Amino acid sequence: MSAKLIDGKALAARIREGVAARAAVLREKRRPPKLACLLIGDDAASISYAGSQQKHAEGVGIDYELRLLPGDCDMQAALGAVDALNADAGVSGIIIQMPVPKGLDGFALQQRIAAAKDVEGVGAANLGLLAMGRDALAPCTAAAAFACCQATGVEIKGKEAVVVGRSVIVGKPLAMLLLGAHATVTQCHTRTRDLVAHTRRAELLFVAAGVPQLIGREHVSEGAIVIDVGTHRVDAGDGKKKTVGDVRFDEVAGVASQITPVPGGVGPVTVAMLLENTVAAAERG
Amino acid sequence: MSAKLIDGKALAARIREGVAARAAVLREKRRPPKLACLLIGDDAASISYAGSQQKHAEGVGIDYELRLLPGDCDMQAALGAVDALNADAGVSGIIIQMPVPKGLDGFALQQRIAAAKDVEGVGAANLGLLAMGRDALAPCTAAAAFACCQATGVEIKGKEAVVVGRSVIVGKPLAMLLLGAHATVTQCHTRTRDLVAHTRRAELLFVAAGVPQLIGREHVSEGAIVIDVGTHRVDAGDGKKKTVGDVRFDEVAGVASQITPVPGGVGPVTVAMLLENTVAAAERG
Repeated sequence: MSAKLIDGKALAARIREGVAARAAVLREKRRPPKLACLLIGDDAASISYAGSQQKHAEGVGIDYELRLLPGDCDMQAALGAVDALNADAGVSGIIIQMPVPKGLDGFALQQRIAAAKDVEGVGAANLGLLAMGRDALAPCTAAAAFACCQATGVEIKGKEAVVVGRSVIVGKPLAMLLLGAHATVTQCHTRTRDLVAHTRRAELLFVAAGVPQLIGREHVSEGAIVIDVGTHRVDAGDGKKKTVGDVRFDEVAGVASQITPVPGGVGPVTVAMLLENTVAAAERG
Repeated sequence: MSAKLIDGKALAARIREGVAARAAVLREKRRPPKLACLLIGDDAASISYAGSQQKHAEGVGIDYELRLLPGDCDMQAALGAVDALNADAGVSGIIIQMPVPKGLDGFALQQRIAAAKDVEGVGAANLGLLAMGRDALAPCTAAAAFACCQATGVEIKGKEAVVVGRSVIVGKPLAMLLLGAHATVTQCHTRTRDLVAHTRRAELLFVAAGVPQLIGREHVSEGAIVIDVGTHRVDAGDGKKKTVGDVRFDEVAGVASQITPVPGGVGPVTVAMLLENTVAAAERG
């Protein structure tokens, strides 16, 4: 391996440190930042995830409030709960835990979150503002992938960037962030005819395809910076499981100049970005 | 010249015909589509432009209402006028004539337009919905450029598309439309290092750079489809003026397979798209 590792854990720690300082200033001004999570139903994984969010938030001085709704509530009640959080001046940021129970429209609920409190960046308004280059709360995973690239210190302006994936929460907002930083951006996806030809042109390669170990040595040019957004639990071959990304790390680390590991790359930064969005929303609020 | 012309006037006529039929259905249902234009101040060019809009709208059975505000009105009054149009069930679509007088925030006024009535597609919500692949009112010029490409009958899926320009009203929404149609999209701009290398890769080349006659024969590969979004009045050399695009038409027509002329290409289709957005908004309303 010749590539330098982009250490997501260390980057996340630096971001959290900055967030904690900003949260402390707000607390001194009696405007404590608060993240509110709306959880509908009693899905065990969602409850466990909310607990982890709470620990992260409180760890940097962000208050956390869990609002529960019964799993059999109707759309009107769910929208009412979002409206109440929108109207609550003490709430800086709102998350709706996905998936919501069947019968509820999760997309419509997310679109109901006030743009200024949409700290996960799941609303159309934030995505539009991001495309416009205006103050926006960027989707956390896209912001994390971008931050990993920025952390290399390499200038993005004028670089050839290739994004593999065009999802609403990663690929597209990532392209917008890169365009805003003046990279030339190519967005590839499942219908792309000659993926290798594109990825080999990349000086900055972002892989958010959602396909385990899609990208190998043949896809990457010498010296490229490679940011791997994928996380997959796969069989390790010995009856155990392991976590891999969209990139064949061992192969690509031999040609890239810098690369994010999986785990320990984009993942930890994503959580930090949620906290950063929350404190940013509180500052503006 | 070997390229086939993409006839914007004929395409616009076909679109207007479809819009007129849809407007007639709405009128029969006593839900006549109506385009409202808010004009602040007495700029002669704006008044003349509004008159032209009115003619186009009424020509396809769309009612037109001009609402005037004095040039010295304050932001509160202007926002109030937008709110009134938002709340008016008889209004399908809203345009705010730009530029607004100094002292008013034109961007904020445009963002105040209800997304469902934002028929010029100038709001963040519509741009975000477009990126999400949801029902959106696409910015008219981007939609027109895309329609010119569709009018060739050539399949867009899997094609190499290159967009020169990254403006909020053309380049970015155009990239979203192309991604939605499954093209592989590269977005180039003033900071792009090697523009020719990119444009020569394009099977579908969209030029919305805002630079007169930027793109010449050397930029275009044999057989490409070229859509020219630029319109510029320049000296014709004989003391007169002529209209040119971002593409050196005479050169590029020798290599492209199909090309939009300027004038008579994207321009006329843009007006038709405003009418189509208005009738679409009325149908949903």
